[in-house]
Amino acid sequence: MKALCDIGLIGLAVMGENLVLNMAGKGFQVAVFNRTTARVDEFVNGAAAGFPVKGTYSLAEFAASLSRPRRVMLMVKAGKPVDDMIEQVLPFLETGDIIIDGGNSFFQDTRRRYIFLKDKGLRFVGMGVSGGEEGALRGPSLMPGGDRAAYDEIAPMFTKVAAQVADGPCCSLVGPDGAGHYVKMVHNGIEYSDMQLIAEAYNILRQAGGLSASELHEVFAGWNSGPLDSYLIEITRDIFAVTDPETGRPLVEMILDKAGQKGTGKWTSQNALDLGVPTPAITEAVFARCMSAVKEERVKASAMLAGPQGKWEGDREELIRSVHDALYASKICSYAQGFALLRAAGEEYGWPLRFGEIALLWRGGCIIRARFLDKIRDAFAKEPNLPNLMLDPFFTEVLARAQTPWRSVLKTCRDLGIPTPAFNASLDYYDSYRQAVLPANLIQAQRDYFGAHTYERVDRPGVFHTEWIAK
Amino acid sequence: MKALCDIGLIGLAVMGENLVLNMAGKGFQVAVFNRTTARVDEFVNGAAAGFPVKGTYSLAEFAASLSRPRRVMLMVKAGKPVDDMIEQVLPFLETGDIIIDGGNSFFQDTRRRYIFLKDKGLRFVGMGVSGGEEGALRGPSLMPGGDRAAYDEIAPMFTKVAAQVADGPCCSLVGPDGAGHYVKMVHNGIEYSDMQLIAEAYNILRQAGGLSASELHEVFAGWNSGPLDSYLIEITRDIFAVTDPETGRPLVEMILDKAGQKGTGKWTSQNALDLGVPTPAITEAVFARCMSAVKEERVKASAMLAGPQGKWEGDREELIRSVHDALYASKICSYAQGFALLRAAGEEYGWPLRFGEIALLWRGGCIIRARFLDKIRDAFAKEPNLPNLMLDPFFTEVLARAQTPWRSVLKTCRDLGIPTPAFNASLDYYDSYRQAVLPANLIQAQRDYFGAHTYERVDRPGVFHTEWIAK
Repeated sequence: MKALCDIGLIGLAVMGENLVLNMAGKGFQVAVFNRTTARVDEFVNGAAAGFPVKGTYSLAEFAASLSRPRRVMLMVKAGKPVDDMIEQVLPFLETGDIIIDGGNSFFQDTRRRYIFLKDKGLRFVGMGVSGGEEGALRGPSLMPGGDRAAYDEIAPMFTKVAAQVADGPCCSLVGPDGAGHYVKMVHNGIEYSDMQLIAEAYNILRQAGGLSASELHEVFAGWNSGPLDSYLIEITRDIFAVTDPETGRPLVEMILDKAGQKGTGKWTSQNALDLGVPTPAITEAVFARCMSAVKEERVKASAMLAGPQGKWEGDREELIRSVHDALYASKICSYAQGFALLRAAGEEYGWPLRFGEIALLWRGGCIIRARFLDKIRDAFAKEPNLPNLMLDPFFTEVLARAQTPWRSVLKTCRDLGIPTPAFNASLDYYDSYRQAVLPANLIQAQRDYFGAHTYERVDRPGVFHTEWIAK
Repeated sequence: MKALCDIGLIGLAVMGENLVLNMAGKGFQVAVFNRTTARVDEFVNGAAAGFPVKGTYSLAEFAASLSRPRRVMLMVKAGKPVDDMIEQVLPFLETGDIIIDGGNSFFQDTRRRYIFLKDKGLRFVGMGVSGGEEGALRGPSLMPGGDRAAYDEIAPMFTKVAAQVADGPCCSLVGPDGAGHYVKMVHNGIEYSDMQLIAEAYNILRQAGGLSASELHEVFAGWNSGPLDSYLIEITRDIFAVTDPETGRPLVEMILDKAGQKGTGKWTSQNALDLGVPTPAITEAVFARCMSAVKEERVKASAMLAGPQGKWEGDREELIRSVHDALYASKICSYAQGFALLRAAGEEYGWPLRFGEIALLWRGGCIIRARFLDKIRDAFAKEPNLPNLMLDPFFTEVLARAQTPWRSVLKTCRDLGIPTPAFNASLDYYDSYRQAVLPANLIQAQRDYFGAHTYERVDRPGVFHTEWIAK
């Protein structure tokens, strides 16, 4: 081992450990520290045995073991623990050292910490890391935000650690200060809608079409070799093939329908509301998880609220094709919302985001990795200021072809009482965006009526108010 | 005039002035102050001439003119101006005096100010005020939050100032600290969805049914004498009857379809996301305003994105009846979301909210005043802990009767490409809530697959994790 380590990592939970193993496996020498130091021994003598990983037992020892400028990566819980750890490690660092926060930090916290550390002469990189445990170990998608010079110091290491795709590593500087964590947040928002759309597709196929788990396995296997080819479709395919050893039934059917969440989808929706960017598919996905959580209420309501009585009678193969097209089109709408949000955030926070590069970062390693991100990269390569992804000719054409089956399957769900909130939010997004005229003129009339909020006119500029009734 | 005034009001914008005129008209003597003192003269010698209103030109004079304990009402812009004014007036107040914030303050600010002033021996009431300019003058809906003892000091005045309905005044103590402003926020969230649902109904009737403004006037006049009877339906009726003097065309058609917003609908959605309560109809209404704002993008997209070519051919009267039923049912879903949010907020913030009383507060004076709030009051009178408004037998029955036309009209919109985001979000809320089983089991399987997030089972308690594929 060299006298000094290339990087130090604090926080040996599973993501941190797997990142260390990934780095060490690429030949980088890594110092590790954990608040509970027993964990250090366990890791160094266990999973990391034989790798160039140096356990340290105090922050002084940790800092002393790093080459300069020090690269200190934090993999601790988002929120106060990050601030606490920064405070604790600060006394052992020097001007020019680099702190990298690889947790799921809220981007506004990252912006605040960036300024806090800059004032102290330190450099800070807020790095979004996606790919779960497997990704951390085998190559995650990395979304770093910070100064170019700081990134250049760490790029040689992280571009090797990241997932590799045909176009290169899934790691490049996203933008300044909180941009990396912001992009990771939007990634997670899209992940929420991707998952919800898949869940709705599953629900239609089982409720209307009566497909069994093994049939669903076949359907998703087929979809994964077409334009929907993606990690989430792939694991869904796999999930449907797993049998519960206890009951012999498909395991997915033994899982309680209460979905958990950790907040990044919520952040995306809340920020979209702040920036005034419609992200209905993402937000419906968040709400759908909330709705799933009130299982007991739903069971009670299911016996009280009336639904339609009809049974579906149609061509099963056609249903499967229609659901495929509805899923593909809805997915495009959901990504369009995510990229529209990124565009607005770039303007709001002063980040020169390159949307094609971001699509490329998500091409491998992360949860939403998908073949069709190449098409998104292409779209922004052709037209870097594309106002909405749906306006790229490739996507315009896909949407045009999909719209008839998309409408048809959602009408079927209305007939059967099958809820499809994210599918509907996606189609309403599409149908709203392509309206030259929306009925918001009436809303402006109402606002002017009761609150004198004024309105604009269609025929000439200016701001107007009307006394709607004689008072 | 008496030597000392009953109340003082700071902030002579239109809402403040109208409230003063309302109070003075009821015989209360009101001292007024405004940062720009010229406004004081203008008001006292203008609109307030002949009323028991005393103009004051410094905060010292203002405070000296009030009987004890002083009642100081702030009608200044929400946010920092409220904090600034509190700081400025504080030196002139004494223990036991009461500050009433009648602005659209964010409820968390109200909670903070309540504690800040309590520490100084002052009492603080955060009072939601709804009804626009007209309501402020003729009787608004008042939603005060604070201590019972403080409320009792101001109740004799504000119960007279408020709107009066058959059951009494639209003013009663909502709950502690920020509860009043919270209830006002949810009121505004519901107002957003009410307005969006009406706009969508209008859009369907003009796009599919081809109704003219004068026909729409007749339709809304009819609706206003049935279960939809409400202020917003009434003013919509009126709006359709107003002719643009410049062009001779219906004025509503000359208004640009870009809706503005001032943030309270956004706050409602963001807080609902924080509390994990689905409010999709309210949130879609907020997003619809954002979507309306990108007029130029929409005009461009309208020439690029494909829609269906069909024309509606059906019975016009039946369409009107179906839209009515869809509107009524969607409105119930939207109020159900608002009351579910209130219920969660009561638990989260420790407020013993009485939902029936809140329905009564909204029965008159405010923007969402509507006949059917009596039914909501009845529902919570029968069952104060009703988990969801839709489960009250009256509403269950209305929804059951409405569901067929509701589904039908939304299918028609899919065929025609007419966007109905709030209608769809409402029906998906209904259809989701009545599902004993949602497809969230698949989402839990996915989360466990890529993130080891664990899951519960349907057949026994516990928390489980599966190695979904051999690694």
